Amino acid sequence: MTQQRRPDGSLRHLLTLEGLSRSELEVLLERAQHFVRRAGEPAANSTVLAGVTIANIFTEPSTRTRVSFELAAKRLGADVVNLEMQLSSRVKGESMLDTVFTLEALHVDVFVLRDAEVGVPGMVAASVAPHVSVLSAGEAHVSHPTQGLLDALTVLQRKGRCDGLSIAIVGDIRHSRVARSACHAFQTLGVHDLRLIAPQALMPESTEFGGCARSNDIAQGIAGCDVVMMLRIQKERFADAEIPAGDDYFREFGLTGARLAGAKHDAIVMHPQPMNRGVEIESAVADGPQSAIRLQVANGVAVRMAALEVLTAPLAAKGRR
Amino acid sequence: MTQQRRPDGSLRHLLTLEGLSRSELEVLLERAQHFVRRAGEPAANSTVLAGVTIANIFTEPSTRTRVSFELAAKRLGADVVNLEMQLSSRVKGESMLDTVFTLEALHVDVFVLRDAEVGVPGMVAASVAPHVSVLSAGEAHVSHPTQGLLDALTVLQRKGRCDGLSIAIVGDIRHSRVARSACHAFQTLGVHDLRLIAPQALMPESTEFGGCARSNDIAQGIAGCDVVMMLRIQKERFADAEIPAGDDYFREFGLTGARLAGAKHDAIVMHPQPMNRGVEIESAVADGPQSAIRLQVANGVAVRMAALEVLTAPLAAKGRR
Amino acid sequence: MTQQRRPDGSLRHLLTLEGLSRSELEVLLERAQHFVRRAGEPAANSTVLAGVTIANIFTEPSTRTRVSFELAAKRLGADVVNLEMQLSSRVKGESMLDTVFTLEALHVDVFVLRDAEVGVPGMVAASVAPHVSVLSAGEAHVSHPTQGLLDALTVLQRKGRCDGLSIAIVGDIRHSRVARSACHAFQTLGVHDLRLIAPQALMPESTEFGGCARSNDIAQGIAGCDVVMMLRIQKERFADAEIPAGDDYFREFGLTGARLAGAKHDAIVMHPQPMNRGVEIESAVADGPQSAIRLQVANGVAVRMAALEVLTAPLAAKGRR
Repeated sequence: MTQQRRPDGSLRHLLTLEGLSRSELEVLLERAQHFVRRAGEPAANSTVLAGVTIANIFTEPSTRTRVSFELAAKRLGADVVNLEMQLSSRVKGESMLDTVFTLEALHVDVFVLRDAEVGVPGMVAASVAPHVSVLSAGEAHVSHPTQGLLDALTVLQRKGRCDGLSIAIVGDIRHSRVARSACHAFQTLGVHDLRLIAPQALMPESTEFGGCARSNDIAQGIAGCDVVMMLRIQKERFADAEIPAGDDYFREFGLTGARLAGAKHDAIVMHPQPMNRGVEIESAVADGPQSAIRLQVANGVAVRMAALEVLTAPLAAKGRR
Repeated sequence: MTQQRRPDGSLRHLLTLEGLSRSELEVLLERAQHFVRRAGEPAANSTVLAGVTIANIFTEPSTRTRVSFELAAKRLGADVVNLEMQLSSRVKGESMLDTVFTLEALHVDVFVLRDAEVGVPGMVAASVAPHVSVLSAGEAHVSHPTQGLLDALTVLQRKGRCDGLSIAIVGDIRHSRVARSACHAFQTLGVHDLRLIAPQALMPESTEFGGCARSNDIAQGIAGCDVVMMLRIQKERFADAEIPAGDDYFREFGLTGARLAGAKHDAIVMHPQPMNRGVEIESAVADGPQSAIRLQVANGVAVRMAALEVLTAPLAAKGRR
Repeated sequence: MTQQRRPDGSLRHLLTLEGLSRSELEVLLERAQHFVRRAGEPAANSTVLAGVTIANIFTEPSTRTRVSFELAAKRLGADVVNLEMQLSSRVKGESMLDTVFTLEALHVDVFVLRDAEVGVPGMVAASVAPHVSVLSAGEAHVSHPTQGLLDALTVLQRKGRCDGLSIAIVGDIRHSRVARSACHAFQTLGVHDLRLIAPQALMPESTEFGGCARSNDIAQGIAGCDVVMMLRIQKERFADAEIPAGDDYFREFGLTGARLAGAKHDAIVMHPQPMNRGVEIESAVADGPQSAIRLQVANGVAVRMAALEVLTAPLAAKGRR
């Protein structure tokens, strides 16, 4: 993926974690850890992005991710504008570019984009001026790079490393940008035992997720693993006759305390939220001592601060001159 | 009300003025007076809340109160995010907590909540982490503590004291959070002659508003008083056969110049806004020399700055260390 | 227009460019040029408006203009609140004043107003306290002063001067606030050859636009000119039988490369956006080397920073004391 780099090889956009080197991921995670705030203490305000303007453009509603990016930008001293666009899909690409060009002319330096269509962040990244960066906040089923980073950061914090861990991803992997970005992050950071667990209809194509084991049996799939990452299942999927619905899904693929007992005794449980409690996960597990789910959310702001800082480093350097 | 205090007795939440001591009210009002800005001068910017994040969650629309809290937070240097939630009442409590927990994980330190249901601010206050504060911006008919504080501040500014004043509250007292919070503030600050004036159907239960006189006759009720506080009447109330409607209401309970003449010659007139001119109050009175109505709005920002400062004192102290 | 001045003659409001002196325009444009940011460099943050509060009230949606004002305010260090009002036209004036008075009581110092009705900015300007300023962000068909300033700034940047230039304005001049404000700016800055080109039904009344030549023929109208300013045509106009519709409009009044060749060889092309490509302008011209359209947008923030700075000078001076 040279598409997201500058000619000198540095990261300009963050559209995907695919192709990032281990040391690039480690720099991002180290900066993120630096920005992690302890509960009950005020955020360490930074002015590293003073004079930088960030536009959050979300065509899919997501309060959590939008607020997370908004706070990350503000805590770095950037100016932020929020735009919610509801676009008919026919004119979506065109309208998005019109809006982006207008905002670019208003000196927006970073676009944070969430879009349900494949290719929109990349199209914008290919169209903007050389000093402008694009940060994907979720692209269709393809990519959600800051979620992948926060998942990796959460594992590092709770397990001390990624190298050599056994990680199981359970649920609707086929349609999940979270699973794709997590897979890129984990494999680059040294996870060799990565397992995909899903009903056959929710498994990705065999050409994707190279190097991962696959199983339709959750008990077998999570046996002895260090991390169980559950995914949200969209209730609309249950209309598909090949996917067990509601209670049946929970019976076959839901994470219960009994099933979790098959993983390592200190395995952690993750979920990108929002959860369908009683569908993909039991409440007692979601809120239990092995859960790292709220830690994931907490890491979101720090990871986004790190990504913004890294992408805008050349711009910020000019500001300091 | 120990529910809103920390173990050391200091104020952590502000859900109601009930149970606050006279000296606690006086500290809040003194800080508010400190933040009062003179017209035509820029606000004295403060950075006392730098690094503190405040979320305004309003499930009832209220531009005036929302902007008032937003400006209070910004003038103290806090980061602010606004969330407007339209929630079906069935899932309201649950969704509110989900949202609050997510924002708490994003390091929101103070929740400013307005909600039409009884008990939501208290439920959130009981659920958040120990360093997080909740400030009610209006809870059903129960409480509106910053409105009560700004009413008290307005009286102090115009009358020099609350002790020993005669104050009449006129209108839909039964459904009014404004009346309840004002009553708590005034009684704690030494008002012994507090009078409730309303049609019988809009009088509160006899178990409430202890120590107040009651009257269904406005002329008798405001005779010789120092402060006349009018309340807004919801036009929907007129569907109740026991309540005089529209013109009849104005004829029986509207505040006219003639009626105001029965109060002290220097009595002041207050109203929480928005006003129904010609229903509960005559325009000439609302805009006349005895009116303190715009002063009330002006005091809103200062009072909210004071409340935010007091509640977050331990957090801000950590930031300064 | 003394209506927008203080007793000492300085600019307090900016409702129209009509009546501003040449030196007043030049000061505004010089300050704007000072705030122009080079692409790829962070904005020069200023704190000249620290402690000043600005409310953007838009009753017509306009992302570009709203974001432009929002960024201008933030880059000067002001506190900003955005209000979008959808008002039934019957109560519009009244509700606008209620909102303005409430915000004024909350210590809003500058109102940025966009409104589809004639007279609303002036009514607000006449009603607010002496230290408060009103900046029109577009008033019906009457005035759009910051757009006129940014058009003049764009011409200055590309042509080095306005004096003695030949400028053609093409399109729906009758309903255009952009044309009216541009005309005021250009004439005051020394443009004597100003030409209005439109179908007869879109020409303004003969009592307006004094000193301008008029033509219904675009080829004749733009012959030899230095600047071609195209206007957006609302598609609703095509319902009028006297106005050529769609393709016919483009055939008669659209700016094509062939037509532009009739202007000076270094003529520039301007458009206030959003464009109807293929209706009033050919895409090749809009995106071509003679186009200054994106430069216009870029100048928007700088011009609005200059206007805010100039209007609030007395307030900011008090803040520095």
